[in-house]
Amino acid sequence: MGSRPIIEYDEQEAYLKIRGGSKMRVVIVGGVAGGMSAATRLRRLSEETEIIVLDKGPYVSFANCALPYYMSGEISQRDSLIVESPAHLKKRFNIDVRPNTEVVDIVPEQHQVTAVHNGQTETLQYDRLILSPGSKAAIPTIGGLAEADNVFTLRSIPDVDKIMADLNKGAKTAAVIGAGSVGLEAVENLTKRGLDTTLIEAGDHILPFMDYEMAAIVSRETAKHGVTLKLKTKVNRIADHFLELSDGTQLQADIVIVAVGVVPDTQLAQKSGIKTGDNGGIIVDDRYRTSADDVYAVGDAILVNQILTGERVSIPLASPANRQGRQVADVIMGENRRNQGGIGTAIVRSFDMAAAATGLNTAQLKQAGIRYQAVHITGQSHAAYYPGGTPLSLKLIFDPQSGELYGAQAVGKASADKRIDVLSVAIKHRMTVFDLPEFELSYAPPFGSAKDPVNMIGYAAENLVEGLSENIQFDEVDAAVKAGAYLVDVRNPKELTRDGRLPNAVNIPLDELRSRLAELPKDRQLIVSCRSGQRSYIAERILKNHGFKVKNLDGAFLTYSAAYPQRIQHSGGK
Amino acid sequence: MGSRPIIEYDEQEAYLKIRGGSKMRVVIVGGVAGGMSAATRLRRLSEETEIIVLDKGPYVSFANCALPYYMSGEISQRDSLIVESPAHLKKRFNIDVRPNTEVVDIVPEQHQVTAVHNGQTETLQYDRLILSPGSKAAIPTIGGLAEADNVFTLRSIPDVDKIMADLNKGAKTAAVIGAGSVGLEAVENLTKRGLDTTLIEAGDHILPFMDYEMAAIVSRETAKHGVTLKLKTKVNRIADHFLELSDGTQLQADIVIVAVGVVPDTQLAQKSGIKTGDNGGIIVDDRYRTSADDVYAVGDAILVNQILTGERVSIPLASPANRQGRQVADVIMGENRRNQGGIGTAIVRSFDMAAAATGLNTAQLKQAGIRYQAVHITGQSHAAYYPGGTPLSLKLIFDPQSGELYGAQAVGKASADKRIDVLSVAIKHRMTVFDLPEFELSYAPPFGSAKDPVNMIGYAAENLVEGLSENIQFDEVDAAVKAGAYLVDVRNPKELTRDGRLPNAVNIPLDELRSRLAELPKDRQLIVSCRSGQRSYIAERILKNHGFKVKNLDGAFLTYSAAYPQRIQHSGGK
Repeated sequence: MGSRPIIEYDEQEAYLKIRGGSKMRVVIVGGVAGGMSAATRLRRLSEETEIIVLDKGPYVSFANCALPYYMSGEISQRDSLIVESPAHLKKRFNIDVRPNTEVVDIVPEQHQVTAVHNGQTETLQYDRLILSPGSKAAIPTIGGLAEADNVFTLRSIPDVDKIMADLNKGAKTAAVIGAGSVGLEAVENLTKRGLDTTLIEAGDHILPFMDYEMAAIVSRETAKHGVTLKLKTKVNRIADHFLELSDGTQLQADIVIVAVGVVPDTQLAQKSGIKTGDNGGIIVDDRYRTSADDVYAVGDAILVNQILTGERVSIPLASPANRQGRQVADVIMGENRRNQGGIGTAIVRSFDMAAAATGLNTAQLKQAGIRYQAVHITGQSHAAYYPGGTPLSLKLIFDPQSGELYGAQAVGKASADKRIDVLSVAIKHRMTVFDLPEFELSYAPPFGSAKDPVNMIGYAAENLVEGLSENIQFDEVDAAVKAGAYLVDVRNPKELTRDGRLPNAVNIPLDELRSRLAELPKDRQLIVSCRSGQRSYIAERILKNHGFKVKNLDGAFLTYSAAYPQRIQHSGGK
Repeated sequence: MGSRPIIEYDEQEAYLKIRGGSKMRVVIVGGVAGGMSAATRLRRLSEETEIIVLDKGPYVSFANCALPYYMSGEISQRDSLIVESPAHLKKRFNIDVRPNTEVVDIVPEQHQVTAVHNGQTETLQYDRLILSPGSKAAIPTIGGLAEADNVFTLRSIPDVDKIMADLNKGAKTAAVIGAGSVGLEAVENLTKRGLDTTLIEAGDHILPFMDYEMAAIVSRETAKHGVTLKLKTKVNRIADHFLELSDGTQLQADIVIVAVGVVPDTQLAQKSGIKTGDNGGIIVDDRYRTSADDVYAVGDAILVNQILTGERVSIPLASPANRQGRQVADVIMGENRRNQGGIGTAIVRSFDMAAAATGLNTAQLKQAGIRYQAVHITGQSHAAYYPGGTPLSLKLIFDPQSGELYGAQAVGKASADKRIDVLSVAIKHRMTVFDLPEFELSYAPPFGSAKDPVNMIGYAAENLVEGLSENIQFDEVDAAVKAGAYLVDVRNPKELTRDGRLPNAVNIPLDELRSRLAELPKDRQLIVSCRSGQRSYIAERILKNHGFKVKNLDGAFLTYSAAYPQRIQHSGGK
């Protein structure tokens, strides 16, 4: 159910008249998403407020998500990285924007900041202060890193200017440290530019916001494009255009990009006595108020309520920063606006494959101690009979009893974004698996299927919660078979020859199952599998209705083989 | 909030054991979406139930939404139109499927149907009967239509076989009567096949599920592809490959496709005394029970609860039919499943433009007597700085006081489906405009924007509900100006030269507005406009904050010029 915040004036803020404006001065530290959204919304609410934006960088409004694509030339104009100029912001919004101006001191008790510009120090009074310092690249401790002249981060226009200078000098090899979104985007664009590129990741899979088996699909596609992937690998030392890796490799790299994540850029806030929490994130209430009077904070630098766990977390993404900037302006102007917290939604493209996730993944659920069940399906981006459809791998995570939704992940060449967007709304609104089949999603042959993958995964999850189906995960099946379970692959023999066999599986094609029930042991745990899990679900139901003890291998061959390609047995020439 | 239907056994149905199955016989009249979904779900729930599907057509499981695309060869194989064969349905699901078998009589009191196959009459007993007769093409009363040998509907494989025979004989000209989804798809595919095609529509716009100004964008694109559009036009007479139109035109047409909508195919049900309602749709309760004991009905033939108006309506679409088929199987097997009603979501592609809608449009709201407000924005399919983005026109309709969502419409070359899917979930779950800015939608440059169009239209609507902004619609502005309002266009002079001028507008570019306030009358109603409505909203806020009485022309130049292209004034060579 939707909620309508009634417009009311908070007592503490009531001296401000939202409709008429106020002659106060608002100083904003840090531009870009959070800061500039706050500044422009403030101006739209009031013509009279004095708005000053101080940014230590040269650009107060630029598209940081665009930076990787500039390296390959996919975004060809450097100008398109810059969203707004101070001159235009002055003209259109009457905002006093001061780039290259670093705030070095905040004295909340005196409502005062000290900033340095071109070596000149200036002290400014404020009525309200908004901190929007953002986050900065985390830098791993690697010997030789600090001294190397070919190691870069990829967070700002000056960063990318330096990288482009090296690329233009003829760099031929590249190493990217860290396989998150920025790492993957860097790898894609360096490869497209023609560099021989290696991606180094300490964890066991790329894209930490995804689960292992979903990320594995992306890894496979990324490797197909010539990228060398080094998982569970660390960099021990960097020296003279070489990297020494934990697996003993000596890797040549003309250019090294460090993309191991970000940390809130909150040294200034901490120094000024403003309370921070985990990871250095600024603690704010749901009106963006920090521990200091009249000091607000938004964007990557703050901790927000993770709706699903109730924990304070950092969600350093552009969309929430924009929303928060707008909301803090409303709060300052006396609107009853609240930060409602977040669930987190992310997407990244690696070459022609997209990977998207929303809500909690299994690692986060385990850490939070929340019991969950998962289900995988492989659908099609649109109706199978219409040309051009591509497979879409979808994973849903939910409460095994209530069916409450916790998270969803999608990987595919098309429409992963669409399905995750729909599921993100469902998760944020605390819906259950029972709601998904009811979704009325747009269907015509070029766009979807009469049973959309989102409906289908809802049905699959509903079957599990209602006990019509039981599943076993890709990472549990081998142990189960070892412990005595009997694995039945219901694909056709042709598919086994073409795609490979699961280890220790007996093959009985689905359409022969009813006539071959006698071949199956009634006293043992059966596990059924097919290609995607749909036929094996039918097999499961047939077998259950005939009194067998049976589980469906969730996601079947496609999920298992993505996770463990080396365990698939290929007969003959393959 | 999600709801979890607890599995419980209804008293009346309790003699059936869902887990163990039952030896009853279920007869299903009509295959395809509703009937076949019911049949296969029934089998998955029970191995013992006898399932018989009787279908009067030759194909019990075919992709009717694919038919138009077969005409152009975009779907090239006739086989891909057929989803399942009776032989395979027997093998996999042990379902007794009987095509070319027409049920001519139902006697509910005796649990008995009479069917005719190849001239042979057979009487069948049933324990449960599911009616899934679907809908049939509505046929307008036009002189000469019945006698003409070149007039076709486009609902079945036999239909398309006949059309293909004519096309293959060398038809050069085509007329399509009716500009709904099927009409538009027919026009596109006939045009792609090289036919000179005319689309004839009695209403004032194409795509009756869309509003006038949104459909107008599609009309413009469709016309660009060489299609002749005849709006507000009827066919008076059909004779000898000519159509006589109400505007006096004599139109040559080697082939005529009638696509003026569908009506429930419920003669048999009516004859059998089963209660029907509006439009002949079968009346069912939320467990799909008809007025006759043990007779259920699903699909295009039934009336369902329109969630937003509470009225019983016909929503003849593939997705609900599939869902209903599955649910009626659950109901028959004793699951506590309910038809939750629908809001209706539709999409159609016309050449490279997609038009999608969900919930209620303004015509439906007017008819239901519901007060509403609309807002239009033009966003981008993805981030503006990333190549390949295309404009997305979005309209949102909501309650002016509470902000409750009623409907949404989208038109664009990319991502209309994605945004409408997200909005359909919001509308079905009775959310408000205040929920939309909170949606955490996936963002990376190739997929979206940090402020997604769905977030943006939420902000725009929120501004209206909270009174920060007021708007006036494209179809109200001319009258308002006539009545004394002062229209200010805040675009740049270059845009006016390039795109044309609004009638009676004064031009003051936004960035000059603050310095030219003296030129504006304080005592008159001002209306501001720009290209998309975003800059004029900024202008509105500036002016409001300076004490002017001002409204924003909703959707601005883009919406107005799509609706009234002939009213735009082009200076110079254009």
